[in-house]
Parts: sequence; C-alpha cells; structure tokens
Amino acid sequence: MASYKLLLLPGDGIGPEVAGGMEVVLGALKETGLATFETETDLVGGCALDAHGSPLSDETLARARAADAILLGAVGGPKWAGVAYENRPEAGLLRLRKDLELFANLRPAICYPALADASALKRELVEGLDIMIVRELTGGVYFGEPKEITTLPDGSKRAVDTQVYTTGEIERIAHVAFDLAAKRSGRVASAEKHNVMKSGVLWKEVVTKVHAEHYAQIELEHVLADNCAMQLVRRPKQFDVLVTDNLFGDVLSDLAAMLTGSLGMLPSASLGAVDDSGVRRALYEPCHGSAPDIAGQDKANPIAMIGSLTMCLRYSFGLGEAADALDGAVMDALASGARTADIAGEGTNPMGTRAMANAVADAL
Amino acid sequence: MASYKLLLLPGDGIGPEVAGGMEVVLGALKETGLATFETETDLVGGCALDAHGSPLSDETLARARAADAILLGAVGGPKWAGVAYENRPEAGLLRLRKDLELFANLRPAICYPALADASALKRELVEGLDIMIVRELTGGVYFGEPKEITTLPDGSKRAVDTQVYTTGEIERIAHVAFDLAAKRSGRVASAEKHNVMKSGVLWKEVVTKVHAEHYAQIELEHVLADNCAMQLVRRPKQFDVLVTDNLFGDVLSDLAAMLTGSLGMLPSASLGAVDDSGVRRALYEPCHGSAPDIAGQDKANPIAMIGSLTMCLRYSFGLGEAADALDGAVMDALASGARTADIAGEGTNPMGTRAMANAVADAL
Ligand SMILES: CC(C)[C@H](C(=O)O)[C@@H](O)C(=O)O
Ligand SMILES: CC(C)[C@H](C(=O)O)[C@@H](O)C(=O)O
Repeated sequence: MASYKLLLLPGDGIGPEVAGGMEVVLGALKETGLATFETETDLVGGCALDAHGSPLSDETLARARAADAILLGAVGGPKWAGVAYENRPEAGLLRLRKDLELFANLRPAICYPALADASALKRELVEGLDIMIVRELTGGVYFGEPKEITTLPDGSKRAVDTQVYTTGEIERIAHVAFDLAAKRSGRVASAEKHNVMKSGVLWKEVVTKVHAEHYAQIELEHVLADNCAMQLVRRPKQFDVLVTDNLFGDVLSDLAAMLTGSLGMLPSASLGAVDDSGVRRALYEPCHGSAPDIAGQDKANPIAMIGSLTMCLRYSFGLGEAADALDGAVMDALASGARTADIAGEGTNPMGTRAMANAVADAL
Repeated sequence: MASYKLLLLPGDGIGPEVAGGMEVVLGALKETGLATFETETDLVGGCALDAHGSPLSDETLARARAADAILLGAVGGPKWAGVAYENRPEAGLLRLRKDLELFANLRPAICYPALADASALKRELVEGLDIMIVRELTGGVYFGEPKEITTLPDGSKRAVDTQVYTTGEIERIAHVAFDLAAKRSGRVASAEKHNVMKSGVLWKEVVTKVHAEHYAQIELEHVLADNCAMQLVRRPKQFDVLVTDNLFGDVLSDLAAMLTGSLGMLPSASLGAVDDSGVRRALYEPCHGSAPDIAGQDKANPIAMIGSLTMCLRYSFGLGEAADALDGAVMDALASGARTADIAGEGTNPMGTRAMANAVADAL
C-alpha cells in the first residue's frame, strides 16, 4: 500500500484544534488499512510570523513543495491586525497558493439534510442543495500589478489594485469546471461583469470558446456576478457548477456556503496543474476561517477539516473507497446525533471538537 | 410654489412602463398641490443607441446637466448583446454617473411587512429589515485606467481592469454614510478586502480617520466583503448603514435587495456634490433592471420607480411632506390589496403596471 506524505499546517485560531480532530481521524484511517500517511507539521500565518518573522518561511514553502498534499487549518486573527501588509497572516496563505500555482479552488456548498433547518433560507429552497463553486485562485485582483499605495503631491493617497486575466488562465479554470460538470449534472454557470469589466469580456469570450470546442454536451449559462448573488439567494438549486474569478469567487463562495447552514462542515480543495513527475500539487482547507472568538475552547466543528481530508483522498490520491468510508463515517456520526455547538439545535447538549472527531473515528 | 425641472429617461425593457406608472403619480402629485414639475423625456441605453448611434448623446447629457433631477427607468437587454463595448446600453448609464459625478449611490433594502413571506429567508430574519447601502459610484474598478484587452506575442489575450481609490473619494462617501447614520440608528459598517487589496487598506484607513475626526458618536464596524455577504444572509438585521466601494456595492446591494423579497419595490438615489449654485446633481432609478422577459406586457411593478420619485422629493427638493404622502399612498395601496405579479401571493389575481400606478395615485 502506498504511503503518502502530508504536510499539516494547522495555522491560527481554531486551526490547531480542527487539525487535531482531523489527526484523530487520520489515525483511525491508518488502522482500517485503507491508507497510510506520513505527516509533518509546520507553521503558517500569524503563528509563523511570531516564530520566524514571516507568515510563510522559505523552509515551510520547500516542505510544501515536497509534500504529496497539504492540509491547512486557518490563518489570521485580531492579534496581527497591526502588522505590516506584507507580513499579515493571509500573506502566508496567498504565497502558498501563488508559488504552488494552485489555480483551481473547489468549494462545494452542500446542505446536509440533518442541518437544513440551520439555514437562514426556507427549508424547501436549500434542502438537497449541492453546488460546486470553481474559483480561479492565482490570478485577478489578488495578484495583479501594480498593487500599491502612493502619496500624491498634495499629501493625499492613491491606492491601486489591478485585475489581470489572460486567455490561458481562463482556459484552464474553464476546463476544470466543465470536467467537473461532466461528472455531475452537466451544467455550468459562469459569473463575471462583462458589462463593466474588460476582464469580464475576456472571461466570457474564453469560457464560451472552451465550451464550444470541447464541451458541447454541457449546458453553459453566463450570469452577471451581481445577479448571481441574487439568484443564489432566490433559488440556489438552479446552480450546479459555478465558475468565476478570484474576487467574485471569494464573495460568492462564502455566500453559497452560508446558504447551506453548514459553514462548519464545508471543505475546499485548491488544485494546481499536474507537473512533469505526474504530481498535482494540492492544498485542502476548511471554508470557515480562524474564528478567533472561539479559539482554544474545544468548540469548533472539525467536520470541515475532516471533509478536507476526504477531498484530499479523492482528488490527490484517487482513494475513492477510503473517501467514501470517511464520508459515510461523518454521516453516521451526525445520524447518531453528534453535534458541535454551531450545528446543535436549541435545547440540545453540544459536544466539543475532540468528541466530534472521536465520534467520526469511531464510526469509521 | 417652486417648480422643478425633471428629466425622465425611461430607457429600455420595462423602463418605459414603470416610468409611465410614475408619471401617473406625478400627475396626481400636481393635483394635490404638494409640488409641481416640468418634465422632459429623453433616451438612454439601447433605445438611444438605436436612435442616435450612442447610448447617451451629448444633447441628452446637456439636458441632464440642466435638470434639477433625473429619473431613470432601466437600461439594457439581449437585443444589444452583440454591440461594441463602448456602445453597450450600460455605457450610457455609466457616462451619466461619471460625467455628473454622482458618487453616492443610496440603496435602501427594506422588507415591507406585507411582503416578508416573499423573501427566501425565514420571516423572523427579514421582518422589519431596513438597511441603507451607501455604494461609491464613480470610482474603483468601474472607471480606473488602464481598462483594456491587449494581444500578446503568442496571439493570446490579456485583459486588465484597474481599481483606483484616492483619499478624497473615500472621504466624501464616508461622510455621506456617517451623515445618514446620524439620522438613523447611528451605526455604520464599512466593507472592503483590506487583507488582499491595497484599495481596501486605504479604504479602511480613511473611513477610520473620518470617523475619529468627525463622527465619534457613531458606531463604526469594519467587515471583510466576503464575510459581509455571509452576514447579510445569516443575520441581515445586524446592519443599518453599510458603506462600500463600487464593485462590492454592486454585488452586496443586489444581495441585500433580494433578501427583502421586494426587489420590485426598491428605489435608489445617486447623488453628486453640491455645486457652486447650490444644486446637488441627482439621478433616481429603481434597483430592478430592465427585465426584458416581461417588457411590454404591463406586468412590471412600478413601485420601485414611484419610490425613486419619493427619494427625489426628499433628497433633491427637501419636500418631506410630499414624500411622506407618497410613501403613505404606496402603503395604503398595498394595504388595500393592490399587488403586481411579482408580489402577489399564490392564488391571488395580480394587477398590471398601470393599475398599480392608478391605485397609488388614487390613494394620494
Ligand atoms: C484569508 C483570505 C486571504 C482568503 C481570500 O480572500 O481568498 C479567504 O477569504 C478565502 O476565501 O480563502
Ligand atoms: C447596469 C450596470 C452597469 C449597473 C452596475 O454594474 O453598476 C447595475 O448593475 C447597477 O447596479 O446599477
């Protein structure tokens, strides 16, 4: 049986707790004999800044390159609100994404039946919801240059960010979206603002072309990003795969995640291209952030982090059987009534991070 | 009694119908003696392109400058999907905003009690909702240069949009937000992505400074734009005044409007600075778009357009009494059961655009 090298980057806030929960499950997974892993743990974000003076050291980056996959908890928190822009915890995560060229961010927004009532939306609108958001992750306004603040002659300031997209960047993310759709319901919606942005014009043009040339059997719809936000609220189940740029993807994927009522349950994958040695670089992380308000209290829900491991098994290692088993264990734990505070109904007694992880491990 | 010069720009799609409905109400308003208006009607958007080869002619722009206020219906539609970028209907609206320097876009998101059940959200989350979104409208990625698509040596393309904000642009929109909050609940939330964008860093810095120097009594909260989208869904009533940039404002205001379940009821105001002669340039328009699918069928809800007139009375002319009367008339019409198709419950018999406008005029 193959053994995979995982780099664990628990990070800040609730990151270490949920990563700890995931390690419990990883241990159980080894015992089942379904897969084995060597793990290494390192720092990213605010804790890395505190320890090394940088939110991602060159050594950690080298380890990330050498790993078969990376599992990240979360970065950031109010403790680092005052640090210089290039040293903020988020810069560590952004450097990982950019340097490993993890251009395809997959964010499933799934409404778990047991939790449909936790949604702000009416049950019938979200029950059975299963959207896959495909967000471009290494381009757009996140990385375009110039990105700077300059001082004008009168002493006031001028800030600039630059949204840049090339044909190639749009093509490769479009392929990811269409390939996923082919395995799902066969529908893709592409969101941009071509009525205002030149990058939106190119985005729409390239997605249309990739579709016509390679995926005629897939249904493609173009939707303006503002309208997309509305439609996600009005009738979310109209969407299956939703592909969009880095910034719109940031907002729309958080919106979609919140619709499900299961934010603490949603994982994500950030995938790169397959390199010469046949390895696809990949980083997996929960959608929730570092939640500093509940950090260190054994309250966080580890399921999103465990789900990130499931995605890792599936996308990085093709271990469909192990992934299914893990998915099933989460379902079983939920069905047996295991609930952390974020998903516990009123009047019920929630369990802690560790207990929830144990419940999943036991179910496995 | 003063007489005001209004420029009506009905535009495309359902624009002419809802503008027609508003004119009925304008007639009734004259009869009450509460205010009188001279109106002039002109073209903008697709219809202007068809007639003059430009979505906003220089003559129309000159008329817009000369008017005391502008009332616009909607622009755009599939008919013009193929026209050149600089001639698309939206360019007419964007030119109006930019040339008249209408930098402050006020978009109320109000949930009308009678319509709370039309929201996708659970009733208790939206009942009584009353958010005022203050969107910067003449800066950011909408207008920054370079904004272009270039061809690279290998024949592929590169698209660029530029997000630019200066201290002065942020200061003036911050003042609008804080001044509004002072007359409301005294709370402002400011949304940006300072963790990724330099314009977000400057935005946060300037809003913080304006607050500290002039509005210490107002409560200010900074929220990341992605989190803001989540919070709008999770617990929308936590917000009162929400100030944000042009692009985030586009997405977040549409999202907030959809939450209310009353999209066809929501007006907006786009205000400029007060010029040397004491006039504040202003354009009022409904939040809904041109809705080409129902255009010309006497189905559209004219209340958002009528509400835009109400905002005009209040913000441009200080006619609080007339504005209150008009608001009251809309409430009375709704209370008496008047409903267009978009807000009619199941099994009820909706009325048309014109009938709804008449119902409001009669109530007046
Ligand atoms: C932490 C932050 C830089 C990041 C982003 O904006 O991409 C986060 O919001 C996300 O969506 O992963
Ligand atoms: C029509 C379009 C250019 C416009 C915008 O993006 O600003 C619209 O969506 C709006 O919000 O008024």
